Amino acid sequence: MNGAESVVRSLHAAGTEVCFANPGTSEMQFVDALDRTRLMRCVLGLFEGVVTGAADGYARMAGKPAATLLHLAPGFANGAANLHNARKARSPVLNLVGEHAVRHLGYDAPLSADLSGAVAPFSDWVKTGSSAATLARDAMEGWAAAASHPGAVATLILPADLGWDEGGVIAPTPALRPAGLVSDDSVARAAEALGPGAVLLIGGTVLEDPQSLKLAAGIAQATGAAVMAPGANRRVEMGAGLPVIPRIPYPIDMALEALSGFDRAVLVETVEPVAFFAYPGRPSVLLPPSCRTLTLAERAQDGRAALAALAELVGAKPWRGTDAPRPVAPQAGPLNDLALSQAISSALPEGAIIVDEGITRGRDVGRLAAGAAPLSWLAITGGSIGIGVPLAAGASVACPDRPVVALQADGSAMYTLQGLWTQAREGLNVTTVIFANRSYEILKGELLRVGANPGPTALDMLDLRRPDLDFCALARGMGVPAQRVEDAAELHRAIAASVCEPGPMLIEAMLC
Amino acid sequence: MNGAESVVRSLHAAGTEVCFANPGTSEMQFVDALDRTRLMRCVLGLFEGVVTGAADGYARMAGKPAATLLHLAPGFANGAANLHNARKARSPVLNLVGEHAVRHLGYDAPLSADLSGAVAPFSDWVKTGSSAATLARDAMEGWAAAASHPGAVATLILPADLGWDEGGVIAPTPALRPAGLVSDDSVARAAEALGPGAVLLIGGTVLEDPQSLKLAAGIAQATGAAVMAPGANRRVEMGAGLPVIPRIPYPIDMALEALSGFDRAVLVETVEPVAFFAYPGRPSVLLPPSCRTLTLAERAQDGRAALAALAELVGAKPWRGTDAPRPVAPQAGPLNDLALSQAISSALPEGAIIVDEGITRGRDVGRLAAGAAPLSWLAITGGSIGIGVPLAAGASVACPDRPVVALQADGSAMYTLQGLWTQAREGLNVTTVIFANRSYEILKGELLRVGANPGPTALDMLDLRRPDLDFCALARGMGVPAQRVEDAAELHRAIAASVCEPGPMLIEAMLC
Repeated sequence: MNGAESVVRSLHAAGTEVCFANPGTSEMQFVDALDRTRLMRCVLGLFEGVVTGAADGYARMAGKPAATLLHLAPGFANGAANLHNARKARSPVLNLVGEHAVRHLGYDAPLSADLSGAVAPFSDWVKTGSSAATLARDAMEGWAAAASHPGAVATLILPADLGWDEGGVIAPTPALRPAGLVSDDSVARAAEALGPGAVLLIGGTVLEDPQSLKLAAGIAQATGAAVMAPGANRRVEMGAGLPVIPRIPYPIDMALEALSGFDRAVLVETVEPVAFFAYPGRPSVLLPPSCRTLTLAERAQDGRAALAALAELVGAKPWRGTDAPRPVAPQAGPLNDLALSQAISSALPEGAIIVDEGITRGRDVGRLAAGAAPLSWLAITGGSIGIGVPLAAGASVACPDRPVVALQADGSAMYTLQGLWTQAREGLNVTTVIFANRSYEILKGELLRVGANPGPTALDMLDLRRPDLDFCALARGMGVPAQRVEDAAELHRAIAASVCEPGPMLIEAMLC
Repeated sequence: MNGAESVVRSLHAAGTEVCFANPGTSEMQFVDALDRTRLMRCVLGLFEGVVTGAADGYARMAGKPAATLLHLAPGFANGAANLHNARKARSPVLNLVGEHAVRHLGYDAPLSADLSGAVAPFSDWVKTGSSAATLARDAMEGWAAAASHPGAVATLILPADLGWDEGGVIAPTPALRPAGLVSDDSVARAAEALGPGAVLLIGGTVLEDPQSLKLAAGIAQATGAAVMAPGANRRVEMGAGLPVIPRIPYPIDMALEALSGFDRAVLVETVEPVAFFAYPGRPSVLLPPSCRTLTLAERAQDGRAALAALAELVGAKPWRGTDAPRPVAPQAGPLNDLALSQAISSALPEGAIIVDEGITRGRDVGRLAAGAAPLSWLAITGGSIGIGVPLAAGASVACPDRPVVALQADGSAMYTLQGLWTQAREGLNVTTVIFANRSYEILKGELLRVGANPGPTALDMLDLRRPDLDFCALARGMGVPAQRVEDAAELHRAIAASVCEPGPMLIEAMLC
């Protein structure tokens, strides 16, 4: 057995079922091994950012890593932006990146570059294979680094000759590093800190667990503290039967305002919230300077167990509250922000997966969807735009029976639109709603926040008109049926119909 | 004057006229400075790979760097693959990459990553700005590194606050590092080595200079040596009146065969040729093991002067030979490889710029175009696919009066297809001919070369059908008119018409 086959067989034995791939010459022996073993589902992306974003989406829903197959330093770099998002999400992803054969490395061939250097800033774990015999063991070490709580991006560099060489040895599945436990002391201190004027900030895996969400809200009810979550998270369970956990807003002034009233903060699987960017005259830290911060559970610790212990100590019961009202479909009319949010939230079926790269628009969908049937909400976690289309594809590969609805800003969509082709090829039930405002709307606000008084050159750099993008044509060009909608009631009907149909659909919502 | 404005004004004073940009929040002060000064043409790309590929294309034709404006580590990474190509081409490019404000760096904000680490593998020169007062000086140091012979990729990291801060100082234009001179001794040794059985390998700026091409061919005629060029080059001048310089083929066995007869090689602005990839049972070095190699001019030296001295020493006159026959338009019929090449080469007007990302198809265009009117040929230099559409855009920005014809493989086109929108927005006369064979054809050969016997999973990973891509729809979605062609004579007419019309056009050539 060659090195490539030993890696494929070892990963499969550990439960790795999917390989998202955009291979090149240096990965041909992996393509061959995947072909001969037929152990994994191979999903092709036409661009590496699709591959890595899909692996992230898969991981968020499957709760375990897929493999990616990438080609040398430029191929890895093409996938790096979505690996950045995956890292910030703590999504488990295992990258297999082909490198030139060891004997070829010294020759400065056209595709030679510093691959170790290129992967390091976008990986939590990096290793370069050194022999066919140890390649599978290295891969499993990376797998364990990726799959251990809370999740990480691991990258194994695979010199091509180690894949060809015979002598591959299947490696056993290593034990995962368990989530760290929180001390009774920490729980006691957190209990003491909570009360009116305090905020319980919950993140990470806590947000993925309905019981933990109810406990967190129950603790807030019992102590008089508030409960909040970071602005963007790997996955949040929400909808009817679950408490609404307010998220920290993106705009700096709204974020400062939302946190201004607190003098104690207790953190569970998250860190002290900071501004997305620095702005002249604004602080980087969002909590008031006088606020005392206390960590109940680090990201690598078991926040769910910590919350359970905390609930017991403060005598809190799981939240039992009134559901938010069911969202209602909008009347016929133009697609303003509220109508857009109503049209989407009211069309969500039970079990829907929402992928949120709406950026400036559709910000009310989350609020309204609190009263919808239970759903999962996946956000852009690292601020690197171009995550939505691939994330939706990967989530759908993980959960073929759950419809995916992607809230997609138009500017961001253009970074990785190639993912629509993968959605079509794999027959994924993804409904992409393009928020067509035809500008980098968010940057107009940012330009004002740095004190500029924008003239025509600046505005032109933030404008997506001249020519207008036609997302329906783009979608059809990649085999995805598409429809343009200008009316709110029609948008509702289009989404409601699409989520019931197999296969992808793109709806270009013309915003007013 | 703030730091951002001092950079813009200093770069402009040195002759920098164009900024290719995909900015984000941390670059808003640069957008503002570009807006207020109106000194540079700002060209927006909808994806960073478009920005960097266009900067490369611009540099190849303008002979000087444009600036790029990129956003943080993920934004840089999105542009890295085409910077890799630019580095391998020795194209002068100056990247301005925004970073978080210094005071914000310690907070692990969502978009934080190791930016210095991310840029290093794809840059020849890197610096991080340290104050508003010195920012322009740093930028000009980078500009000089980029613009000095033969060209380099320079990256300046710009913490956002240095752009806002007052105290910017315009920096003088530094002197460029001159190309190194070649010793008389080296010229004498080269003269001695040349003769039957020797090959003169010319690369770099030599290929851009008609007089040097004629001298090189004249030296070959006078000495009985052969003259050849690397397979992929930044820019080659060719066509009627110029000698045909054979290039080293891409496929390993053809490359070995082409070089098998030589026992001496003299290198001018290039290095010893190596295989693109390592293959089992094949060498990395392409020249025979017994071949003696001698460097007349390193890449950083003046190969043109060296060739002139060499010609004088061996008594060679500039080449005067018979032009290759003018290419003829093909008869009506299916688009096989020869008909495709005929259709394109016979439609090229004088002064055309050819962008070659044809990969497996259209390989005869270069041979046939040797008899066409003079033209410039730009190739994919670093093997990182996705260069064609942006490179064509940048070349056209540099040379608005010269029609650009892009030979574009379909699989490669999908990496940076967003560049079509930039072509439309800027009204660039670019004719993109998509070679629609609907597969990663080159990888099928590579799979066989590593000894695989591909089954359905492997073939599926190299196949672009299911669903078929419709490039005409994709082009129209970005405002570029498009036409699908299945007949060779019709393709000729379509290209001949398009190059005479302003603005971009995409022709999807359905290959048989």
